[in-house]
Amino acid sequence: MERIVEIQDMIAAARRARREGKTIGFVPTMGYFHDGHLRLMTRARQESDLVVVSLFVNPTQFGPGEDLASYPRDPEGDAAKAASVGVDVLFCPRAEDMYPPGSRTSVHVEGITDKLCGESRPGHFRGVATVVGKLFHIVQPQRAYFGLKDYQQFLVIKRMVADLNWDLEVVGVETVRDPDGVAMSSRNVYLSPRQRQSALSLNRSLRRAQELIDEGERRPETILAVVKEMISQQPQVRIDYVVLCDPETLEEVSLLQGDTLLALAAFVGKSRLIDNAVLSVP
Amino acid sequence: MERIVEIQDMIAAARRARREGKTIGFVPTMGYFHDGHLRLMTRARQESDLVVVSLFVNPTQFGPGEDLASYPRDPEGDAAKAASVGVDVLFCPRAEDMYPPGSRTSVHVEGITDKLCGESRPGHFRGVATVVGKLFHIVQPQRAYFGLKDYQQFLVIKRMVADLNWDLEVVGVETVRDPDGVAMSSRNVYLSPRQRQSALSLNRSLRRAQELIDEGERRPETILAVVKEMISQQPQVRIDYVVLCDPETLEEVSLLQGDTLLALAAFVGKSRLIDNAVLSVP
Repeated sequence: MERIVEIQDMIAAARRARREGKTIGFVPTMGYFHDGHLRLMTRARQESDLVVVSLFVNPTQFGPGEDLASYPRDPEGDAAKAASVGVDVLFCPRAEDMYPPGSRTSVHVEGITDKLCGESRPGHFRGVATVVGKLFHIVQPQRAYFGLKDYQQFLVIKRMVADLNWDLEVVGVETVRDPDGVAMSSRNVYLSPRQRQSALSLNRSLRRAQELIDEGERRPETILAVVKEMISQQPQVRIDYVVLCDPETLEEVSLLQGDTLLALAAFVGKSRLIDNAVLSVP
Repeated sequence: MERIVEIQDMIAAARRARREGKTIGFVPTMGYFHDGHLRLMTRARQESDLVVVSLFVNPTQFGPGEDLASYPRDPEGDAAKAASVGVDVLFCPRAEDMYPPGSRTSVHVEGITDKLCGESRPGHFRGVATVVGKLFHIVQPQRAYFGLKDYQQFLVIKRMVADLNWDLEVVGVETVRDPDGVAMSSRNVYLSPRQRQSALSLNRSLRRAQELIDEGERRPETILAVVKEMISQQPQVRIDYVVLCDPETLEEVSLLQGDTLLALAAFVGKSRLIDNAVLSVP
């Protein structure tokens, strides 16, 4: 596995691969790899000639008071894990090269970025869209892989790619969970054992919501009340949002029908965790 | 010369050329070609294997009350002219394909877009940056050509390409003028013979400014006063702006030194004309 730091070297490698007729599969990450990341890389490995993983803790997607400084990092461990699943290139640009003085361009996706996590984290998705756009130009992939745990991010990137006519495919990959059901996240490392217990309620409430639907419940307010109750009765938990919405527009639904996204975010201790499920209403 | 209307066909043609190792030179236009356009195409022809010209009167860069509906059009004449200078592909997408329902992504270049034409035409450069970004993804050029008559547009696109790490070169091409010195513009067709006389003052005032500098003048306010006086004494002319500014940041200068951009816009009758010169201060 090759490690690339310089943006120009990454562009040169991408050009070379393209010229040789190779397909490039790309997994953008902020590092501290868990099995969720590795599943994205494995999927890219199966579908591409050259697998590129970027590792960049992007400052512009963190708000003031968020965990940029303390975001967990393990570059050596990450490199070993990436190599173990057959990644060809680990691209680790420097922040000062990604955002040199005078940078003043950003990519805005309106509407769907104001809701859910966008409401709690103003500017977050502008930072995400912009850095992913930059990385797409540098890495020049035919396919890019995103975890569906960050469902809204996946949707924003898919929208951006379609709206700006990017010639690449955005692939969403199923959330990977620990055996206890907790969605894998780099931020889980912040959790104390007791907080980890509390975090179990996130996924359990999603599963309970599907059960309620299977039992015939169709009122969003009833399902939301049950989910909120299950989570908020846990110690050290504060709900940020719980929403039932359209999986494409993220508009809240007043009646359950077809596929409906149940998305939630909660602070468990200091860690802000997210999870979601697409509920199917028969 | 091939004419392409469908976005997917253009992407397929670009992919094919890229796969064959061809370089793509791209000239984005709004049509109604004059010698300024043709010079861009000729330059692209000299430097590229495949020359693509887009012809798209982009609605999102016109403000309310501007001349979108009356913007001059001559698709057959344009096709003949493009073919005559060796263009390979004339790409003429439909507005409803470029902006399908649900589109919600735009590219913002901050700061330099608020000044000069950006101040008079709010949202104009967002429309320009977004459509040019889309066209870059569709046409996939190694080089893209822009006329320096639209100096601010050239600067915005160069900034966008650098900031978002686009793997292409933005080439600025010298303004083409009629023998009387008037900068070529599709909007010149709106001018009556008397207005055309008035329009002569734009370029003349730019040349007079350089003379003043050559004679030793260094006070921006003196030069601006002379330029404004020369233009405003013409019939049917209303100045929009006359600015002496830094050619990179577009910040107004308080002292003349090095290269300084003298940029101006004026309504001549109903036509809004622009012109500029980079003045060199010894």
